[in-house]
Amino acid sequence: MIRFFAPALLATLLASTAIAADPPTTPAAVVSAAPADAWRAIAPEDLLVMTIEGGKHVVIQLAPAFAPRHVGNIRTLARAHWWDGTSINRVQDNYVTQWGDATEKKPMPTGLVPTSAADYVRSLANVRLAITPLSLPDAYAPATGYVDGWPMAMNGDAAWLPHCYGSVGVGRNLSPDAGTGAELYTVIGHAPRQLDRNIAVVGRVIEGMAHLSSLPRGSGELGFYTATERKIPILSVRLASDLTPAEQPRFEAMDVASSSFAAYLRLRANRKDDFYDLPAGGVDICNAPVPVRPAA
Amino acid sequence: MIRFFAPALLATLLASTAIAADPPTTPAAVVSAAPADAWRAIAPEDLLVMTIEGGKHVVIQLAPAFAPRHVGNIRTLARAHWWDGTSINRVQDNYVTQWGDATEKKPMPTGLVPTSAADYVRSLANVRLAITPLSLPDAYAPATGYVDGWPMAMNGDAAWLPHCYGSVGVGRNLSPDAGTGAELYTVIGHAPRQLDRNIAVVGRVIEGMAHLSSLPRGSGELGFYTATERKIPILSVRLASDLTPAEQPRFEAMDVASSSFAAYLRLRANRKDDFYDLPAGGVDICNAPVPVRPAA
Repeated sequence: MIRFFAPALLATLLASTAIAADPPTTPAAVVSAAPADAWRAIAPEDLLVMTIEGGKHVVIQLAPAFAPRHVGNIRTLARAHWWDGTSINRVQDNYVTQWGDATEKKPMPTGLVPTSAADYVRSLANVRLAITPLSLPDAYAPATGYVDGWPMAMNGDAAWLPHCYGSVGVGRNLSPDAGTGAELYTVIGHAPRQLDRNIAVVGRVIEGMAHLSSLPRGSGELGFYTATERKIPILSVRLASDLTPAEQPRFEAMDVASSSFAAYLRLRANRKDDFYDLPAGGVDICNAPVPVRPAA
Repeated sequence: MIRFFAPALLATLLASTAIAADPPTTPAAVVSAAPADAWRAIAPEDLLVMTIEGGKHVVIQLAPAFAPRHVGNIRTLARAHWWDGTSINRVQDNYVTQWGDATEKKPMPTGLVPTSAADYVRSLANVRLAITPLSLPDAYAPATGYVDGWPMAMNGDAAWLPHCYGSVGVGRNLSPDAGTGAELYTVIGHAPRQLDRNIAVVGRVIEGMAHLSSLPRGSGELGFYTATERKIPILSVRLASDLTPAEQPRFEAMDVASSSFAAYLRLRANRKDDFYDLPAGGVDICNAPVPVRPAA
């Protein structure tokens, strides 16, 4: 088989055939070779398991450190089984897949906290979180990098989660509404960074993304499904910590302070192998996602 | 209906209710309000019409000024009806949808010209093409902008088409192979700019993108469909110029030297309306696509 631009396959081949002392030459090979201490377990209370029609699972990692009020609401909604019986209502090409209560009449559980635009940005001034800088120009923010396992856009001490492919955000009405967390979307196209700091990013899809990105696009305004199009049923949404141990998915993310992650970033920006002739010499924050894998 | 982040809908509302003298406040409103002389017809010989299973049409605009040898081959292949009966063979999430001859045994038509890595980049030194600079930082190139209706990455006089969502490129074997143009792909995720100058970009999908982006992902290595998965049949691929006038699709692209395009770019970088509170102050080259519309 001709390997039409086959970086991942090459990575596998190179990783398996290289002499042990050779450093990995592709990002995928770095990930494969990363030692156990380069990985951090993701807490079960930070994992949201959504089961849609056909029993397909989508796993979302929540970011409580950067969106604490919205994430608190999302946990409350999951524990109330609020999303069970709701649906995926909107799929707009090169933009978002969005889900929630299509009727907009479902009663909310008690205990939701109010949110505001202040929740879109966190100050890093008084938190002891290491920053792994990307040190490359970005059209949207003075600085980008990685903090506590997440990609980050920054301006001085102010930090926010950027809208990247697979990012999960909170739908809202017109400003100043900042959304409860009941209406969620994920990015299925090129990073719509204009949404940064205009809407809350609360997490990222870490498994089952294709179940959301390959859905039929809606033909209505903004990609909403019309009355004649079928919404995709959501069977249940649970926190992994509320599942039985046997049911719980387990994932780990690469430590962004590890030497493996540094090597990964370096190679994401500088591919040079049997396929890549000319290293780009750069990479943008949304094109170097933090590696995540199922835990052993 | 609650309009969870509804920029395009708002654009429509604002455009229709604004006093005539008010300048449009959203990119979509600028596009709607652009006068006839802000548009340039796309030549029929630059339009490739691919019809896939179910009679679904995908229209690709070719870029002969920037990939002349590959585009020449693609026209030769289309005129030979070479793609008829081939298939879409690979769909890799957040990366590409790829099509061509899955058997890799179909004889090539005569008249194909050889290609090389020199075809990935064009010099703008001796061509009289105006550059509309984006004047914003890019992680992959010293400069970006728009030339002759296309997004462009640049380094001095050297210019190349960037890999953006919907860009169409030429699959190839390991370097130094540069591909004939028979094996094509389009980007269905975040811009994989590491491929820039490592592979030939030859055009962009301007209609029917969702037919390619919403296909089931392949479960094989690199997203190739496995033996048990169904490849998507390609019924025909034709140049619009080889269709009857009644069959020919007609499109026009916004003139990148027009004041409408300047206003569009300004607003893509600075959304501020009932929905957007905080203008980004920037935009990347792949997040401000050149507007294209069906011709009247």
